[in-house]
Amino acid sequence: MKRVRIALFGYGAVAKAFHQILASDRDRLRSIHGIDPSVVAIVRSSGAWIDPAGLAPGADVLARRKPGAAADLAASVACDLVVDLTPTNLATGGVGLEITRRALGRGIPVVTANKGPLVVAYRELTELARAKGVPFLFEGSVAGAIPTLNLHDRCLPGNRVTRVDGILNGTSNFILTRMAEEGLGFEPALDEARELGYAEADPSADVDGHDAAAKVVILANHVLGRNLHLGDVATTGIRSVSGAAMRLARERGYAIRLVASVGLDGPAEVAPKLVPRSSELNVNGTLNVVRYTTEHAGAFTLVGKGAGGRETATAVLSDVIQATSPRGAAGKAT
Amino acid sequence: MKRVRIALFGYGAVAKAFHQILASDRDRLRSIHGIDPSVVAIVRSSGAWIDPAGLAPGADVLARRKPGAAADLAASVACDLVVDLTPTNLATGGVGLEITRRALGRGIPVVTANKGPLVVAYRELTELARAKGVPFLFEGSVAGAIPTLNLHDRCLPGNRVTRVDGILNGTSNFILTRMAEEGLGFEPALDEARELGYAEADPSADVDGHDAAAKVVILANHVLGRNLHLGDVATTGIRSVSGAAMRLARERGYAIRLVASVGLDGPAEVAPKLVPRSSELNVNGTLNVVRYTTEHAGAFTLVGKGAGGRETATAVLSDVIQATSPRGAAGKAT
Repeated sequence: MKRVRIALFGYGAVAKAFHQILASDRDRLRSIHGIDPSVVAIVRSSGAWIDPAGLAPGADVLARRKPGAAADLAASVACDLVVDLTPTNLATGGVGLEITRRALGRGIPVVTANKGPLVVAYRELTELARAKGVPFLFEGSVAGAIPTLNLHDRCLPGNRVTRVDGILNGTSNFILTRMAEEGLGFEPALDEARELGYAEADPSADVDGHDAAAKVVILANHVLGRNLHLGDVATTGIRSVSGAAMRLARERGYAIRLVASVGLDGPAEVAPKLVPRSSELNVNGTLNVVRYTTEHAGAFTLVGKGAGGRETATAVLSDVIQATSPRGAAGKAT
Repeated sequence: MKRVRIALFGYGAVAKAFHQILASDRDRLRSIHGIDPSVVAIVRSSGAWIDPAGLAPGADVLARRKPGAAADLAASVACDLVVDLTPTNLATGGVGLEITRRALGRGIPVVTANKGPLVVAYRELTELARAKGVPFLFEGSVAGAIPTLNLHDRCLPGNRVTRVDGILNGTSNFILTRMAEEGLGFEPALDEARELGYAEADPSADVDGHDAAAKVVILANHVLGRNLHLGDVATTGIRSVSGAAMRLARERGYAIRLVASVGLDGPAEVAPKLVPRSSELNVNGTLNVVRYTTEHAGAFTLVGKGAGGRETATAVLSDVIQATSPRGAAGKAT
């Protein structure tokens, strides 16, 4: 049994769910994957709680806080793995960028669901991980629970992916779905999304396309080997989609969806588009979908839950298993 | 660069496409995955062609045939990997069962797209592979190009799959699609499938559900840890689906699809069912789809090409890479 000491940076919905699942799935992680993970540090902007014996989920993580900047702790805390779930900052990379730099720099594997560091410094961080010979995995950063990156990396090596299309933002897809279903305008549908907790008070990242554009950058760089930044993605949000356009599309057998697209070259784009209602890209509600077009085997389309603390936590856990299990992701010794 | 000497058993559409892709993708296999595969033996029922220097695709494989029973060659030919693409026999396992037994028995990794040996002897073969410590991979046996098994094994370790549903036979799905689209009866739609090469002269395996049932057995045993055989799957085909039932379903917003289903316990089933037209399971034409329901993250649905020589060959190649690459499927040293 391999003990895995995890330092957890950020303690929001995904981190709390991840911590819970580590506890609830302990037997499965031990018996199938041969690992015994424990959270030995929880680091938040307000302080850190460190216990080499392991911290239980649900405990009051402020009770025994210790001072210390998150980035400094990433450079010093005794652990086998850093999990970065700090808040996203697409402009600077935020504190997550410095945490990831410091951890990889000292040869500690990093698993992250934070788009910020990847959008700002994809090449730098992946090259640093390669130079140090440590895993750097970020499945949770794109489309929540859906294993978009791992589908490519681990399941399609016999194919070359030439194009990626997807619906990568559940909030805007929920709004578009409700506009079509109920004949609502954009603002009432946004209000409904807010009431249900699907949209933030400031919904700009979701409805103006920036969140989807960040995911396009990560997919383009990782799956297609490109070197894009956020400014390279032509991004249009859904604020100007009218109820009239919705009705017209529906009458003609189409849905309007915020489609993200990128190929091996040419422009990357996020924009509202007409999608045939029978298309696999036409998913409803908060679902996400990614479609890989390949050289030899046509398209593969994967649909699943693109958000949610518990759902995204499973993507983080998959990467933790991959990064640390002596048996690999498949849980087999051979 | 790791040389990989492949002994190829069977030389039908999938095997020929696999052989071609090995040649066309040689640079990618070398640079990304660090392997240099060559086919050193092609073994068919009519004879074998063996050349340790490697056989080129497209050559006349009968030109220098050597005698020898396939199973005996599996026990003796000098190679690093056996790929079994011999014809499927769901009742006995066919020659592929003996080939796989002999190869694993001498410690040679096996990649197969042949359902027969898996349906007849899943436990025996997987336990033999484990005992010998060699890879035994069979992605191509279920749903052609679609990485159904690998999605579970390599991408969802953070989740426990509790149920599998799918459309696992492209021929019957094509027939049902055409019946709905054109108001055809079963027989005319079957004739059209035959003309397009989607159905065999004897279509029983496809339209009576046995092919889908075999895939359910493999999914149940591999993904859900069950120990099912073909007789355990309650199987109904599509011969009795009437045009009238099709129309009625369509009017009410449903499609009729040959749905395969199995859970952690209870009965496994293949039968025509009503599927909401907006469901992700409602795929058209020869597409296949598999849906995994998980404990923590809802459902994941993967759609792709469920048949075709070139398409299925990519699933075989993915397994060959996984079984032999020193860098793993992701093509990374770390």
